[in-house]
Amino acid sequence: MLKIYLDYAATAPVRPQIAKKITPFLAEKFGNPSSIHSFGREARKTVDEARENVAKFLNCQPDEVIFTSGGTESDNLAIRGVLAAHSTWQMANSKKRKAKNDKQYAISHKPHLVTSAIEHHAVLHTCEKLEKEKLAEVTYLDVDKTGRVNPENVKKAIKKNTVLVSIMYANNETGTIQPIREIGKIIEKENRQHMANSKSQMKKNNKQYAISHLPIRFHTDAVQAAGYLNCNTKYLHVDLLTLSGHKLGTPKGIGALFIKKGTPIEPQITGGEHEYKKRAGTENVPGIVAVGEAVKLAKNGRETAKIKKLRDYLEKQIAIKIPDVQINGHPKERLPNISNLNFKYVEGESILLNLDLKGIAASSGSACTSGSLEPSHVIMAIYNDPLKAHGSIRFSLGWDTNKKELDYVIKVLPGIIKKLRKISPYGKK
Amino acid sequence: MLKIYLDYAATAPVRPQIAKKITPFLAEKFGNPSSIHSFGREARKTVDEARENVAKFLNCQPDEVIFTSGGTESDNLAIRGVLAAHSTWQMANSKKRKAKNDKQYAISHKPHLVTSAIEHHAVLHTCEKLEKEKLAEVTYLDVDKTGRVNPENVKKAIKKNTVLVSIMYANNETGTIQPIREIGKIIEKENRQHMANSKSQMKKNNKQYAISHLPIRFHTDAVQAAGYLNCNTKYLHVDLLTLSGHKLGTPKGIGALFIKKGTPIEPQITGGEHEYKKRAGTENVPGIVAVGEAVKLAKNGRETAKIKKLRDYLEKQIAIKIPDVQINGHPKERLPNISNLNFKYVEGESILLNLDLKGIAASSGSACTSGSLEPSHVIMAIYNDPLKAHGSIRFSLGWDTNKKELDYVIKVLPGIIKKLRKISPYGKK
Repeated sequence: MLKIYLDYAATAPVRPQIAKKITPFLAEKFGNPSSIHSFGREARKTVDEARENVAKFLNCQPDEVIFTSGGTESDNLAIRGVLAAHSTWQMANSKKRKAKNDKQYAISHKPHLVTSAIEHHAVLHTCEKLEKEKLAEVTYLDVDKTGRVNPENVKKAIKKNTVLVSIMYANNETGTIQPIREIGKIIEKENRQHMANSKSQMKKNNKQYAISHLPIRFHTDAVQAAGYLNCNTKYLHVDLLTLSGHKLGTPKGIGALFIKKGTPIEPQITGGEHEYKKRAGTENVPGIVAVGEAVKLAKNGRETAKIKKLRDYLEKQIAIKIPDVQINGHPKERLPNISNLNFKYVEGESILLNLDLKGIAASSGSACTSGSLEPSHVIMAIYNDPLKAHGSIRFSLGWDTNKKELDYVIKVLPGIIKKLRKISPYGKK
Repeated sequence: MLKIYLDYAATAPVRPQIAKKITPFLAEKFGNPSSIHSFGREARKTVDEARENVAKFLNCQPDEVIFTSGGTESDNLAIRGVLAAHSTWQMANSKKRKAKNDKQYAISHKPHLVTSAIEHHAVLHTCEKLEKEKLAEVTYLDVDKTGRVNPENVKKAIKKNTVLVSIMYANNETGTIQPIREIGKIIEKENRQHMANSKSQMKKNNKQYAISHLPIRFHTDAVQAAGYLNCNTKYLHVDLLTLSGHKLGTPKGIGALFIKKGTPIEPQITGGEHEYKKRAGTENVPGIVAVGEAVKLAKNGRETAKIKKLRDYLEKQIAIKIPDVQINGHPKERLPNISNLNFKYVEGESILLNLDLKGIAASSGSACTSGSLEPSHVIMAIYNDPLKAHGSIRFSLGWDTNKKELDYVIKVLPGIIKKLRKISPYGKK
């Protein structure tokens, strides 16, 4: 049977250039980068080169790149790591002040996180867990009807105890691109103002103010964005940025986290002195090599225009052939490879099962939640309408997608929708 | 140049059978196991099969096996996860009692961990960090001159607030095998006694006693042992057991943790509902497939006798050709593939550099610390003698090691030691 894969946002095939590059590291080049002998030194050199590639991609220094086991771990390290470092700082600060009998500065407040309602669960569930454990208070920002966070809302959400803002670069379900640069600039401005205030208070000998909090850090999950958008961390004004390998065509099980120099962070996996003491564990050398190659392809081999043209063709043809279809997400500020469509009166799961029977792989929501019957939290955040959330499916294209595949989808989809609408309990048949 | 790899305990080449098995999962079989379409279902089936293999190896149920990014992460999940779950339980318990005005049961003590001075840094540094953060108190057990923990000392170390005992199965530097089964039985007995006491106290209506603590859990890091020793978790009487893939011939970046049903554990990486909600992140399918194959090879393809014969030959020849050499570790209860040798009057690092010039890869201490100039904490724990620790090196053999390679080592090593002793500042030339 014809097999058509339109679920690149869930995971992607390993790109042949990457597979070729890593093959020696699955065989004769197997050294542990921490070993001092020739096998180890070769592995170390390889890891260094890959790290330099990633640093170039992110416009940062190599020692600002930490390799992890994937996007989820990177998100966890960013959030839990920064939170833990702030807590350590606050604890030390409180003690110092207590020692000086400055009692009003005992730990007075929980750290505060700002995130959005449409984050990937790696961010959302982590924030929720920290909240539940009373380790943090969290503000979940709403999005507008295009699925976008308003930068002004980030500004309004910032409080004296805010330690981290985490907003994804592009949403994994709708593809909507978030105004990361604008948010980054707002946070920098807040930090500058705090610093200026602190300095002027210090001049007035009002030392309390000076160290009331550390600068707010800004994290973005760029897992979906990295294949298509500018990941220059200086341009984006971010302190932390998450990458996942397999979304860029590496094998699964590898990711990276950009950590801007000076960002306080506590490792969440401890042991040996790997990854600048920020993440213990023998380096996944073939995975790291793969990421080093994947970012080169993402930067230079982007086929954004080609993929966007195909995606637009798919959406246009579906709109012509099927009535009552709506595109979820931002009309323009959207990843070129994602098409999230709402088919009125039918359930997304039923569409997917029927597509699957025809050999077409698409998805509803993110793969990480597709086993559950919960409606997509992203579509719910946009419309607050379970019917819409249940009736939406996502096609996500990639480097190997071609027009023939889409023509097949366009051929079979109208029949599927028609059939499902006939038996739909939700109204129009 | 001839290249001889005798550092299998640091990392190992990917076994050809494993490389063959994972190749399809680096190409056409690339689905995300969480996806519901055919690509996803195929990946799910593959992961399930691998999990069953690991479960057979450990004599446990498949849902007691959690895949992680490696041994270090598994150790962290075991220790941090159990500690966090106990803290959550204790907090809830304290609240309940507070509500009943039973004030004497407010949180009265920190959780207590028992470990040994010779653990891998993944365990040791994690315990030290938790201690530093005042989240736990830790007892570090000494070892005898063979590098063994005395089970009686575990018993003595147990306190009312002990939540976890973590003792490695076999040491990565000396190969000394720890009496895991004996320790496991001791802990079970302690738990049974506590339960019996609780029940009899409950009968007397003395409810305080009943829930003063949860059973003590027992974790073992079996990273080095798994290739050679019985990993039947029921036989060993363990609640948690760490495996690393790459020490068994898989690519780097994959590991597993056995978590006995009923063991309270909090995930340390949160997000999607992967791995029975105990470890979020898209499954590393090729890595998991590799571990599924590696445990089969470890169980059925063990070449223990062959490797032990080679190792004994190496030790015997070295003893004949070089004076003042001592074997570190237990004379009998030692992994068959490790030979940790102390060459009096010379520094281990110098021996390694000279061996490396001849194309021979060996190591001092663990790879994870070989960049540092600290003496091995394992040899220090045995002898408390920095000279001995600095003068020890480890040869570790594997499935591809052959007699010809060892003969080359036996040929060049005496000259190296002689040369180094001539220029040694430590005495005898």
